[in-house]
Parts: sequence; C-alpha cells; structure tokens
Amino acid sequence: MDEVIADSLTELVRRYNATFGTQVSREDLRGRHLEDCVPVDHRDAVESMLDATFFEDLVPLPGAQDVIRELSARYEVFIVSAAMDVPCSFDAKYRWLRRYFAFIPASHIVFCGDKSIVDADYLIDDRARHFDRFKGRPLLFSAPHNVDETRYPRVASWEGVLGFFDAMNTHAAAQIEP
Amino acid sequence: MDEVIADSLTELVRRYNATFGTQVSREDLRGRHLEDCVPVDHRDAVESMLDATFFEDLVPLPGAQDVIRELSARYEVFIVSAAMDVPCSFDAKYRWLRRYFAFIPASHIVFCGDKSIVDADYLIDDRARHFDRFKGRPLLFSAPHNVDETRYPRVASWEGVLGFFDAMNTHAAAQIEP
Repeated sequence: MDEVIADSLTELVRRYNATFGTQVSREDLRGRHLEDCVPVDHRDAVESMLDATFFEDLVPLPGAQDVIRELSARYEVFIVSAAMDVPCSFDAKYRWLRRYFAFIPASHIVFCGDKSIVDADYLIDDRARHFDRFKGRPLLFSAPHNVDETRYPRVASWEGVLGFFDAMNTHAAAQIEP
Repeated sequence: MDEVIADSLTELVRRYNATFGTQVSREDLRGRHLEDCVPVDHRDAVESMLDATFFEDLVPLPGAQDVIRELSARYEVFIVSAAMDVPCSFDAKYRWLRRYFAFIPASHIVFCGDKSIVDADYLIDDRARHFDRFKGRPLLFSAPHNVDETRYPRVASWEGVLGFFDAMNTHAAAQIEP
C-alpha cells in the first residue's frame, strides 16, 4: 500500500517538517528512507507519526485507482499489505481500501508480514526485500528510497504497470500467431 | 483461527444460549453451523455476537499451543486467518495471537479472505472451501460443522496433527534408508 497505491511519503514528510520545523523534501530522500536521514533522536518521533490516524490522511498515488480497476477486469488482483509492521493500522488501512478501492473485494485484501507466503504470478512492490523468496515475477514500483535498486524490472508509475501488462499481452498474442 | 486454534464455538454457543435462553449444545451442531440451525430471525443476532470483544473471551483449543510451538521448531509456520470476513476483529485477533502464540512472529501472521493466495506446503483448516484452489496438501481439522466432509485427510486434534507430521518424517526417513 505505502508508496505503491497510497502516497504515504508526502504525508510523512509533511508531518515531520511540521513537527521539527524542517524543510525535508522528496529529493532529499533519494536512495533512503526518512528514518535513515534524520537525527537519531528523531527516529522514535518518526515511528510514532505512523499512528492510527496516518492512513486517514493519505490520497491514492496517481493512476492507481484507474489502472488497478482496469487490471481487475482482466486479472485476479489482490492487495497485499505488510500491515503486521504497524498493527495499530489494520482498521485504518482497511477503511482506506474500502474508500478508494471499493472494487477490490474484501476477500482479495491480505494483511501480512513476510510476503513470501503469497502465491501470485506477479508482485508489484516498492520494497525489494519482499522479492527475496517470492516465486512469481517481481515488478519494482519506483519510490525515492529504491532509486539505486537495480536487480529487478522497474515501473515508474501506474501507467508504466499498465504498459507492462499490455506489452505482455501483445507478446503473448504474437506468439500464438500462425 | 476459529475452531482450529481458538475455541470460538464454545463461546458462540454460550453467547447464543445466554441471549435466547436456549440449550443448544455442540452435539446439535454436527454437520452444520450455528447460523444454519437457529430461527431465521436470530441470524442477525448471531452475526452481531462476533463483535470486537468476541476474541478476548476465547481460549486456545487443547494442544494447539504446545503442538504449534513444537512444529515451529521444525518448520516455518504461518497463522493464516480469514479475518476479512469480520473486519472489526483485526485488533482483537492480533492481540489474542500475541497473547497465546507469542512464539509466532508478527511477520508470520496473515489476515486474508480467500486463502488461495497462500503459498504453503500444508494448510490445516476446518473449512474445506479454503482447500478448493490451494496448491499444497490440505489437512481438515475436525469441527462439528465438518463431520460429513470426506474429500480430505482429516485430523481430529492437535495431537493428531503432530502424529501426522511425525509419520511423514518416519516415512521420509525410511525412504532414504539404504
């Protein structure tokens, strides 16, 4: 969810700057997470910003709703969130999904920790650690923190995701031409 | 969780009898769920009994803690709950797992709906519908409602689960004997 379908980074940086009177920008976060580039004594504060209200204030990332609706018409789509990292967020995350992604049935929402338990053909994720034991094909969704990750195919946006699957279909169609 | 590691049926029947002054017993529920054998106008009441407090009152089923602790020492064990059926229960279910199964790390807890998304070698479940698209080996955990289910290997208790895996190991060991 975070940084793939929900714009959590904008809100986190906004809360951080509002709390500490700083001017951190997305550009400052290339190749690292906010908690890696703030003074050590601010880290607990950053963690406590991810409270139960955090998700209420997020908006979907551009294209996420339209493209996932389109993909849902063609494929079986699950939303798989590493929600066990922040257990206080279950309810807020669930309400947020019902609000912005009501076309994904509740049966296709997964809150987990280690995503290696997921059996899917593709995993679109901003965190490469979730690909380590994943048996399907990974698609790294670009986020400032992962700019230096080069091990996986990358998509820069939801339009890029749609383009990826369109290209897959064109390739498959070409293969079955006589 | 329900009727596999948590004794939800005892509490549900207790709440039902307390509300309606009835004498429903576990024996009355052979081959069916409580909601299938109560008057139609009681069904909403039964559903509303599964509220956020419900899980607080449950105890683990006999042997569940000891056997799962033992299995966790040998295998990678995930707790996979169809929690999306009752979204108000996320927090209570999570707290219950931390209380009674603290040896299972949060990374190995999954709240989902359709369990076909789970990639595991075995699935121990009381509800046969979760086996429909499961690619691993199913183990039906006996509960009153599933007594008539004959399509899957069945275990009657957690001691039975341990016996099953011990037998698997003995068999595997015998196969590699010279």
